[in-house]
This record gives sequence, C-alpha cells and structure tokens, in this order.
Amino acid sequence: MDLPAWQARLQRFSADRGWEPFHNPKNLVMALSVEAAELVECFQWLTPEQAAALQPTQREAVADEMADLLTYLLQLSRVTGIELEAALEAKLAKTALKYPAR
Amino acid sequence: MDLPAWQARLQRFSADRGWEPFHNPKNLVMALSVEAAELVECFQWLTPEQAAALQPTQREAVADEMADLLTYLLQLSRVTGIELEAALEAKLAKTALKYPAR
Amino acid sequence: MDLPAWQARLQRFSADRGWEPFHNPKNLVMALSVEAAELVECFQWLTPEQAAALQPTQREAVADEMADLLTYLLQLSRVTGIELEAALEAKLAKTALKYPAR
Amino acid sequence: MDLPAWQARLQRFSADRGWEPFHNPKNLVMALSVEAAELVECFQWLTPEQAAALQPTQREAVADEMADLLTYLLQLSRVTGIELEAALEAKLAKTALKYPAR
Repeated sequence: MDLPAWQARLQRFSADRGWEPFHNPKNLVMALSVEAAELVECFQWLTPEQAAALQPTQREAVADEMADLLTYLLQLSRVTGIELEAALEAKLAKTALKYPAR
Repeated sequence: MDLPAWQARLQRFSADRGWEPFHNPKNLVMALSVEAAELVECFQWLTPEQAAALQPTQREAVADEMADLLTYLLQLSRVTGIELEAALEAKLAKTALKYPAR
Repeated sequence: MDLPAWQARLQRFSADRGWEPFHNPKNLVMALSVEAAELVECFQWLTPEQAAALQPTQREAVADEMADLLTYLLQLSRVTGIELEAALEAKLAKTALKYPAR
Repeated sequence: MDLPAWQARLQRFSADRGWEPFHNPKNLVMALSVEAAELVECFQWLTPEQAAALQPTQREAVADEMADLLTYLLQLSRVTGIELEAALEAKLAKTALKYPAR
C-alpha cells in the first residue's frame, strides 16, 4: 500500500470539497475516535460468535468504518508529519521490551 | 507499506505472547477504540494552536498511539478478512457520490 | 434526581422493547462509548468559540447525546450494582489526594 | 442525587486546582470520551461471563471510570446549561416514539 500516494489523494479529495480548513490535528483525532466508535457500534449488540461470523451487510458496514478510520489516520499522519510505518516499528520495539515473548 | 507482511509479523508477535486467544473481532474493535481515545487524550487539553505544534515528548506519545491504532486495525483486517486498501477504495467511491466535488 | 427511580423506569422501558437480553455489562460499556463518540461528533468540526455558543439545533443534538450517555451509565450502574453517587464520592477523594488543591 | 450541588462542588474542586480554563465544552467532551474508553478498557479482554462477574479490583476500576465519566458529564451539563434530567426526559419521549413498546 503506497501511503504517501493515498495521503496525496485524500488531501486532494478533501480540498475539492472544502474540508481542508477543518483538518487540524485536534479535529482529526476527534473525527478518528468517532469512526472508531462507529466500528464499535457495528459489534456492540453481537455475541462474540456473531461478531466472528459477520453477515454480508454487517461486513460491508465494518469495511466502511475501517476505511473511514484509516482515512483519518492517514490524514493525521500527513498533517503531523508522523510517518505510520516508522511509528509502528518504533512502538513494536517498545512493546517487545515491555512484554518479552514467552 | 507491505500490509500482509505486517499482519503476519503482528500475528507472530501476539502468538509469542499468548495474546491470540483474546483477539476476536469484538475485543479487537474495543481495543482499537481505546487506542483512539488515548490519541484523543494526547490532544484533549491543548488549544488548536498547541495541537498543531506538538513538542517532542507529545509527538512521541502521539506516534505511539497512532501505531497502536494501526496495529489493531491491521489485526482486525486479518481476522475479519477485510482488506484495508480495497475497503478504502470502495468507501472513497461512496463518499465521492454522497459529497460531489465543488 | 432520583437515580433508582430512573433506573427502574429505564429497565421497564428496555424490557418493553425486548432489549434487556443485550444489556450485559460488556455490551453496555460499548454502547456507552458509542454515545460518547456521538457527543464528540457534535463538536468535532467546531472551533472552541463555536462550541461555546451552540445554535439551538446543535444544542438539542448535544442534549440528546448527553441523555443517551446518562441512560447507559444508569443501566450499567444497575446491572453492575455500582452506585453512582458513592463511586463519585470515592473517586473524588482519590483525586484530591493525587492532585492537592493549590 | 443533588446534581446542582455536585456541579457546584466539582466546579470548586476544579477551580482549586487551576483546571477551570481547560473546561470548555469541546475539551470536556473529548475528556468524557476518553473516560468512556477507559471504561471499555476494563472490559475489553473479558468474556461476557467474566464481565458479568467482576472481581473486587476490576469492580473498583470500573467504579472509578464510571465516576470520571459522570464528573465530566456533570461539568459539561454545567458549562452548556443543558440540564441532565430534562434532557433524559425529552430523549426518552423521542425514543418511545421511534421504538414503540412491543
């Protein structure tokens, strides 16, 4: 997945709709947390068993919310200049120290 | 960014720590929403101006939370079989229909 | 505000709609976090100034989300047996120790 | 529960610690959503069965997070002037119309 290409595409998409002025970091993290909650909403009344065997409509809703979340994460990455893959690598190293493999 | 490679790596990381049994979709979305909130927490008392000019310590905390969020998103993608880039492409097409460019 | 009376009323309301079987603690906290996010959604694109001077429609939306949140909090209190006022008193004492008055 | 008395008490508590300048509506809803997530965190890796039978330590953590959530809800109610019990009454009437009793 070419993250910089996606970020440029999403930026253009937002600019074409006049959304860019709203996309400061504080607003973007709020929007991102709302999308996370919409993902939770897809699962809130399901049993663990139902959650593990989503019906097609549920599956599409989940995919849409995951996409929304990733959209805001990519935009937050762009406006803060925090590169996602480097952040993942750095965090995984910290977690490995904190929780050694068994 | 090679998403399947990262997903395999994260799966191995979790398996090495005995975390896999907890990673069903319902739990993963809860964990993901918690990480989203931890990201919100980094910004909650900042003015928009402070949020746009993070100090190094704040920046590292934000990077860590973004990484945690992406970790769970990649794992949710793996356990549900919902491919992130395809989901993003599909959702962007829907949003383009709903909100035409100006 | 008579919390036990409200809890009984909300329980009857849910029972009358067949919602009670879904109201276990895990589901209720998920639902509660979704309502918190819907409250965030009301504010996400507002400047601090706009957020401090809500228009009537915005104000009604905020009131509705606050009500939804309180509804789930009251239900969670009922199903867990955790009494809200006692919890508030106990937590405030802890916070007072952790952060002494200036 | 005497909500106005609690609101006055919480306001004094915040003022005594210099927190009042941060308590605008936008910040308060962010803080509130973070507390909702901390509540989710208490439950995220529990099975529904474990969630329904909390151990004493877990129970105390849940009570603390419920208290934090209520604290911010009371403060948000104060700064917005949205009265909680009236909001609950109004919202319940709407929900009754939308979802009639069976």
